[in-house]
Amino acid sequence: MSDEPLVIFTPSGKRGRFAVGTPILTAARQLGVDLDSVCGGRGICSKCQITPSYGDFSKHNITVREDALSPWNSVEQRYQDKRGLKEGRRLGCQATVQADVVIDVPPESQVHKQVVRKRAEARDIILNPSTKLFYVEVAEPDMHDPSGDLERLQDAMREQWQLEKVNADLHILQTMQPILRKGAWKVTVAVHLGDQENPARIMHIWPGYYEGTVYGLAVDLGSTTIAAHLCDLQTGEVVASSGTMNPQIRFGEDLMSRVSYSMMNPDGAQEMTRAVREGMNGLFAQIAEEANVDPILIMDAVFVCNPVMHHLFLGIDPFELGQAPFALTTSNAIRLRADDLDLNIHQSARVYLLPCIAGHVGADAAAVALSEAPDKSDDLMLVVDVGTNAEILLGNKDKVLACSSPTGPAFEGAQISSGQRAAPGAIERVEIDPATKIARFKVIGSDIWSDDPAFEAEIANTGVTGICGSGIIEMVAEMRMHGIVDAPGLIGTAEQTGSPNVFPDGRTNSYLVYDGTASGGPKITVTNRDIREIQMAKAALYSGARLLMDKFGVDKVDRVVLAGAFGAHISPLHAMVLGMIPDAPLDKVTSAGNAAGTGARIALLNTEARAEIEATVRAIHKIETAIEPRFQEHFVNASAIPNAVEPFPILNSIVKLPNVTFNTGGGGDGAGGGRRRRRG
Amino acid sequence: MSDEPLVIFTPSGKRGRFAVGTPILTAARQLGVDLDSVCGGRGICSKCQITPSYGDFSKHNITVREDALSPWNSVEQRYQDKRGLKEGRRLGCQATVQADVVIDVPPESQVHKQVVRKRAEARDIILNPSTKLFYVEVAEPDMHDPSGDLERLQDAMREQWQLEKVNADLHILQTMQPILRKGAWKVTVAVHLGDQENPARIMHIWPGYYEGTVYGLAVDLGSTTIAAHLCDLQTGEVVASSGTMNPQIRFGEDLMSRVSYSMMNPDGAQEMTRAVREGMNGLFAQIAEEANVDPILIMDAVFVCNPVMHHLFLGIDPFELGQAPFALTTSNAIRLRADDLDLNIHQSARVYLLPCIAGHVGADAAAVALSEAPDKSDDLMLVVDVGTNAEILLGNKDKVLACSSPTGPAFEGAQISSGQRAAPGAIERVEIDPATKIARFKVIGSDIWSDDPAFEAEIANTGVTGICGSGIIEMVAEMRMHGIVDAPGLIGTAEQTGSPNVFPDGRTNSYLVYDGTASGGPKITVTNRDIREIQMAKAALYSGARLLMDKFGVDKVDRVVLAGAFGAHISPLHAMVLGMIPDAPLDKVTSAGNAAGTGARIALLNTEARAEIEATVRAIHKIETAIEPRFQEHFVNASAIPNAVEPFPILNSIVKLPNVTFNTGGGGDGAGGGRRRRRG
Repeated sequence: MSDEPLVIFTPSGKRGRFAVGTPILTAARQLGVDLDSVCGGRGICSKCQITPSYGDFSKHNITVREDALSPWNSVEQRYQDKRGLKEGRRLGCQATVQADVVIDVPPESQVHKQVVRKRAEARDIILNPSTKLFYVEVAEPDMHDPSGDLERLQDAMREQWQLEKVNADLHILQTMQPILRKGAWKVTVAVHLGDQENPARIMHIWPGYYEGTVYGLAVDLGSTTIAAHLCDLQTGEVVASSGTMNPQIRFGEDLMSRVSYSMMNPDGAQEMTRAVREGMNGLFAQIAEEANVDPILIMDAVFVCNPVMHHLFLGIDPFELGQAPFALTTSNAIRLRADDLDLNIHQSARVYLLPCIAGHVGADAAAVALSEAPDKSDDLMLVVDVGTNAEILLGNKDKVLACSSPTGPAFEGAQISSGQRAAPGAIERVEIDPATKIARFKVIGSDIWSDDPAFEAEIANTGVTGICGSGIIEMVAEMRMHGIVDAPGLIGTAEQTGSPNVFPDGRTNSYLVYDGTASGGPKITVTNRDIREIQMAKAALYSGARLLMDKFGVDKVDRVVLAGAFGAHISPLHAMVLGMIPDAPLDKVTSAGNAAGTGARIALLNTEARAEIEATVRAIHKIETAIEPRFQEHFVNASAIPNAVEPFPILNSIVKLPNVTFNTGGGGDGAGGGRRRRRG
Repeated sequence: MSDEPLVIFTPSGKRGRFAVGTPILTAARQLGVDLDSVCGGRGICSKCQITPSYGDFSKHNITVREDALSPWNSVEQRYQDKRGLKEGRRLGCQATVQADVVIDVPPESQVHKQVVRKRAEARDIILNPSTKLFYVEVAEPDMHDPSGDLERLQDAMREQWQLEKVNADLHILQTMQPILRKGAWKVTVAVHLGDQENPARIMHIWPGYYEGTVYGLAVDLGSTTIAAHLCDLQTGEVVASSGTMNPQIRFGEDLMSRVSYSMMNPDGAQEMTRAVREGMNGLFAQIAEEANVDPILIMDAVFVCNPVMHHLFLGIDPFELGQAPFALTTSNAIRLRADDLDLNIHQSARVYLLPCIAGHVGADAAAVALSEAPDKSDDLMLVVDVGTNAEILLGNKDKVLACSSPTGPAFEGAQISSGQRAAPGAIERVEIDPATKIARFKVIGSDIWSDDPAFEAEIANTGVTGICGSGIIEMVAEMRMHGIVDAPGLIGTAEQTGSPNVFPDGRTNSYLVYDGTASGGPKITVTNRDIREIQMAKAALYSGARLLMDKFGVDKVDRVVLAGAFGAHISPLHAMVLGMIPDAPLDKVTSAGNAAGTGARIALLNTEARAEIEATVRAIHKIETAIEPRFQEHFVNASAIPNAVEPFPILNSIVKLPNVTFNTGGGGDGAGGGRRRRRG
């Protein structure tokens, strides 16, 4: 044995001695080294490319000679001539061991490649897709030993790939005989490898060796938008991304109005189900066309969404989600086929919906948990997905708590007098001059401040159209920072505040941000009612987080992660001035972008992540804010800016908020923030 | 312990000691006694009825006192008042043990009841259906511990019935929330208990206790007719049976002409698939209406059919079955859902197709094997399913061989000059008078011989219309027995045979059976070409059987079982005179009726029989007659009546066949039987 050459694989470090003439692919398989192959070592697929290293390896105490591998053979030469191999590469199934050798397996030759995420702090995704390709050579039928084509294909998969009894859906049975014969009994099979509920299944068969790949969709089904990533299941790459408005918007802007629509209209739920599936199919068609991918090659799809969208997408009336006790039909993960949901991708594409955490904390929150992994964190993490409802996770390795809180749509610019969705022309950044108390701003689509002489020319195309969610947060925070709004949320008069932009507006005051009327544009103001809306929204968010901190038994958190598209644009300082989020070091407040969409992508690319998030969700402690008396108390306290009782020491060390009071004892619109908003 | 009362159950004989006050149902469950319950012991379903026996039981050495069980309680009294209990019966969940007692579990209270088959020699069917009913009480939703309705239902099924994670199809999710609430969290659930490929599954949910039952269909899908039995899955009873013509007949009478139709017409296979499914749905609707059963209650269906019907029913082009090597798409058993096949029963009713044995030996032959069980026989059994193709099984406990043989449609009256399908007016019994050599006969629909003076009046409604399959067999056999036909199959002249009914007919002779022309009826004759057709058909059948005997290494069989509707009408003596079947004692030649349909019913009622027949089929040795040189040799020998070389000693001991020869050396239509017929 010890005379046989030593083969060392990097980066795994696995090593073993093999007889002279052993193919590298065989050695890798025997050692359990992750080296890809679709054709099973027949020199067809070139997935098993490796890079031998030569010279002295003192670390391994070996010297690799130039002839450590067999010379190039005709198969490699043919491949080189037709497609070209990268410099230094060999085909692992053709090159054989001749002497001690060090073999590097490049990332693209690994089945379980790491798919790198953009954010430095995020874990990479280990590729482990549901559906893989296998090239097999099938025995021809024999009258002396009759058996079905499927059974001989299954034998081939067992013998050549150790895949046990992989069954086929009916549509495969209906089409397989001519394909086997066209391929002269050599075929490539796409196999869904099975999961907890379903055994492995043949998804598709191509005659001969199939050069292409198969795809999956990661879909974030939001109440407002549907976003989808089309991913190559062999490389893990996102090949196209796209989004569309959720066509259900015509039945109601927010979730509760959609629940109401289903209550009021006999076929309301079915109409909304049809609408969202049609919208989704439109999006899938568009994304497939954009990527030039046949939709039949989309064989897996992962969906994340809130509970109401979850039910409407599945064709379940969301009636029960509209009233206590907010009972979900099912909270477990759901595994279906594309044709169960009328999705125009591969007809038996596997569809996976992540589990819901509770009646208000959906599969989208589960996806955020999968992406941000508070359950794997040493730090105590607060993860907030800001939308019409805020889903809030608090936890670390020991335990994770979750709740949702009804923030309402103010953070999306709705119910704000000059509010609008984030779109070109919307004010997204605000600074108030400490001396003049006049605001300058930036709009989406431009990087020039409004007090710059070039501004008007710059925005000629879009104009200044309104204030989006992140803009209104900065606006209100700046007004508080510069003494224009007091802690209870009242706008002072021009005299009280020293700002020429404050003007009386009914029984309260408003603040002029921008007057475009001279050029036919809007007059953009912040009213005291706008302040109230933001106060209620932020109080709901904070009190949910605070309630979880109570339950966890802590007064502060180590890190705050803002998820959601909106979260990506929030200024941590301004959010903390508002008291939206608990007091924390500013550099520990980060944005995770569309963490729900990322969670969907992780579940798509790594099937083990599905079992993982299902276990995580089962372990999460669910808190229902509606029945927690302390939630109400926190809400009242959190209506003040930043908070009536919480000290916010870190914030105070950074900014000094003016100690102003504009309350004249009058009533008007200025009553406290005790009003609760309905969910939606 | 030994002070506690002894409870003895009959008929199982299981016994144990139980604390005073233990319900009989509890005692039965602890001992593993088969005592049914749907409501789980809540006194609702009355499925657990038992009969206590009183007095001295010297066999068991105990005396049962009148007060050995608790007195009637209010639950039993209410049940008695509302529905009545049979004399002596108690509810097993209400009556509790007070002293030593002997408890009889009547058959209707057993889950695994024996379903008795009509034929004395056939094994009873042990009821073990795929789908059972369970009454459960589900926890209400709790905001403090949020979980989905499905998860709480699953918890209830696990806790109350030890059913682990029973999942639900999408249509259940879409409808379950209102049902749970309507039933005030008490529901009856129909559960498909799962199989090798699929986990257990919720099929249906009713609010409260569901009084009804659930059904299954056993379907024999023949090329000519489709026959279905609707069975109660709780009792095993057939509640309705019906049949219909296979609408595919319009595309071709026999299987090969249907395969040709699919080759000649671009959408031919799809057309035939649609036709057979539509025909089947018509039949199901009719049978459900007849039994007054909602089709949604039909939750399981088992199908048996020949390979071509199997493929066409599944929507697979049968092209490959029309040519060597006769490759099936799949030979394994198939498990689908009703909606996969557009069947109008419960949408996710489980559909089971028995395995096919080989390209010409289908799931119908597998069903015959399940019904007749040659693999469990000590005797060497020959089982012949006679149709357009004969499927032949030969075997015993040690091994079973199978083949098919292309008999053609002559046995069904087709290709016979006066032949017709078995229907009123068709000649089915024939006797030739040894003295006059004139035939008398009976027709279907009458039990009077044609030489009876009452005959003409008796058949006034039907007339005499032709000869059916069993009639032509008796006719030819009688002609051979009475020296009108010789061993090679030639009809002699009137002079040679002494029969006034023989007349010259072209270059051969024919035999007049009946002349109805005077009253406007047909003239029914047997031509020498008819004899040839029967010779070829019976030679195909015999040579298939003989080939299997060669392979088995035997010269005789212990028993012959004739399956199929046709087999039920064949006279064993005449069949043996013809040499259709091997020489055997006449009382060992029996008819099994529609054994394929019975096999379907067994697989429907006892799911364990499915695994059993799958294993049996895998073990069966398949013989392809087309590639066996000896088949041709046997065929030529078997063309003679009864056989050119086989001695038939048992037959010879019963009848002495006249040693006549009519061959004049001429050719004509009288050439030997070497011509092979195509399959179909």
